[in-house]
Amino acid sequence: MIRAETKIRVRYGETDQMGYAYYGVYAQYYEVGRVEAMRLLGFSYKEVEARGILMPVIDYSITYKKPAFYDDEITVVTLIKEIPRSVKIVFDYECYNAANELLNTGKVTLVFIDKEKNKPVAAPDWFLKGIQPHFH
Amino acid sequence: MIRAETKIRVRYGETDQMGYAYYGVYAQYYEVGRVEAMRLLGFSYKEVEARGILMPVIDYSITYKKPAFYDDEITVVTLIKEIPRSVKIVFDYECYNAANELLNTGKVTLVFIDKEKNKPVAAPDWFLKGIQPHFH
Amino acid sequence: MIRAETKIRVRYGETDQMGYAYYGVYAQYYEVGRVEAMRLLGFSYKEVEARGILMPVIDYSITYKKPAFYDDEITVVTLIKEIPRSVKIVFDYECYNAANELLNTGKVTLVFIDKEKNKPVAAPDWFLKGIQPHFH
Amino acid sequence: MIRAETKIRVRYGETDQMGYAYYGVYAQYYEVGRVEAMRLLGFSYKEVEARGILMPVIDYSITYKKPAFYDDEITVVTLIKEIPRSVKIVFDYECYNAANELLNTGKVTLVFIDKEKNKPVAAPDWFLKGIQPHFH
Repeated sequence: MIRAETKIRVRYGETDQMGYAYYGVYAQYYEVGRVEAMRLLGFSYKEVEARGILMPVIDYSITYKKPAFYDDEITVVTLIKEIPRSVKIVFDYECYNAANELLNTGKVTLVFIDKEKNKPVAAPDWFLKGIQPHFH
Repeated sequence: MIRAETKIRVRYGETDQMGYAYYGVYAQYYEVGRVEAMRLLGFSYKEVEARGILMPVIDYSITYKKPAFYDDEITVVTLIKEIPRSVKIVFDYECYNAANELLNTGKVTLVFIDKEKNKPVAAPDWFLKGIQPHFH
Repeated sequence: MIRAETKIRVRYGETDQMGYAYYGVYAQYYEVGRVEAMRLLGFSYKEVEARGILMPVIDYSITYKKPAFYDDEITVVTLIKEIPRSVKIVFDYECYNAANELLNTGKVTLVFIDKEKNKPVAAPDWFLKGIQPHFH
Repeated sequence: MIRAETKIRVRYGETDQMGYAYYGVYAQYYEVGRVEAMRLLGFSYKEVEARGILMPVIDYSITYKKPAFYDDEITVVTLIKEIPRSVKIVFDYECYNAANELLNTGKVTLVFIDKEKNKPVAAPDWFLKGIQPHFH
């Protein structure tokens, strides 16, 4: 399993008039967490695109337990629980505040797309080589 | 059933370097659709808050079929399929592009919160009065 | 002179915990106004990029007089006061709320960039042809 | 003089289809830099609001020299060059990329607002006490 922890501080512009971090902002927080998880595989998402693979999101779900507030430091825990065996990869999420309270949980599924052909493809070998050492 | 259609044009700042409308931007589009659906009930979401009710999102899921692009005019179809019978209300979504292709489908669940007590409450009577005429 | 009016409604996700439309959101509102102004020239900004010209912003300033609030309908007035005579074009802005109160004024300067050469270029002829009929 | 350095990594959702960090996103980066500068004064912006003072932006300008790209680590340098002598405070900015190239410079003016009275007020004594030790 791959597990990455990322700290993100809630920006003023990310709050809404309820005083909460806007429910839509977690898509960005999860994206940041995903990037950190991928760095553990030995490459950045930037390099993934440079190698001709795009990874658009095809499914995203999030369940909110508690709000985050302005200036809160949030810990985004990003998990890859399984080696991708098809054209898809799944990231699981948990967000915590500084008091270690669970704020939300979520799941994001991305698909590997060959940029040239604009078609889904199986996870590339170099991607799998990065991920396999983490799974025993 | 309640059904609202809202037209939204993709802004440049909402695209990402893939050239897609960023996956996180639909939370805002859905919110705009929700507001339009609620206007059909005879009040704005602004008035809901003014009457002491907050409606934070507690669950959000979206499945992406096709991307939207810069300057595309998107139709957000927002549906309330059931009268809320508890502290929650569910909105269903479908997004289409100008060629009437389905871009994504989603579901957002909100909870009624009494602002003063900061506690979940059943849907207020005035809310139900607005919604009931649409369900026969 | 070119003058375009665009109506934009403030989204919930665009407010901050002060209850104001976040000061950073006007960059998007101005961008939307700019696109509408350019439609008056006979082409969309999307077509400009398709013809090999990028128009990044090189200067942006805004002075805020009054805040906008959630669900307010804002009128963005976008002006092109001069035919571009170099590699730059200037857009002037005024934003009003529904009570016709001036919310802010601003100015955005963009530069014409040849996408292939990645260099500034003079405003293309087809761009000038679109703009000239509006100036007598 | 007060000088704060803040590192911010460009998120995917902050890029646009030109591949640049969207011109509108710097308002948030500058806000983050401002918050860090204020921490040097001995309090957070959160505490400022808790003490009954709001600090909305009344003027914002930015000049872009070079774009930032996805995953770039940007250094936001935030400067307070003068002790506020009226109801306003000015922050100056410089943004650099990892190669230490100047990306943009800017200036943001905020006004001290008494939250209860909803009126501009002079910078509070406790604010000035935090700032004065940095100016000798």
